[in-house]
Amino acid sequence: MTITVKITISLKDGMLDPEARAIQHALSNLGYTTASLSTARVFNVGIDTDSPEEAKIMAAEMCDRLLANPVIHSYEIEAKK
Amino acid sequence: MTITVKITISLKDGMLDPEARAIQHALSNLGYTTASLSTARVFNVGIDTDSPEEAKIMAAEMCDRLLANPVIHSYEIEAKK
Repeated sequence: MTITVKITISLKDGMLDPEARAIQHALSNLGYTTASLSTARVFNVGIDTDSPEEAKIMAAEMCDRLLANPVIHSYEIEAKK
Repeated sequence: MTITVKITISLKDGMLDPEARAIQHALSNLGYTTASLSTARVFNVGIDTDSPEEAKIMAAEMCDRLLANPVIHSYEIEAKK
């Protein structure tokens, strides 16, 4: 069975997000005032296993070893059937 | 009141995603076999309004005019309190 794991990687609180500031600025130029704007990346990963728990553990390892930078990123993992 | 709208922008079905392929390849080199992998971007936008409906309409306009490329992207909008 394939379990799809949704990994959301975002910047930790307090980290500067220049891309978000640039987007906020561009939106403001188009006339859209925003109170806040933050960005995140999502990876939907299909893992061949029967256990959602195992899939989540594997996804956390992927984050720690490749996808996220522990100094600046935090991540959330959610298993979809 | 500020309503936070979560905008998820992903590639339309059938679009090539070279970044996802590169990540899949890198994960495979680390010993993680994945059945599939797709990427998406998330923007959490705070909008000053009392109406979640108005916030969602404004977010859709932001996608159409700046955030998404209608040729290759699809987007989902979700209003959080």
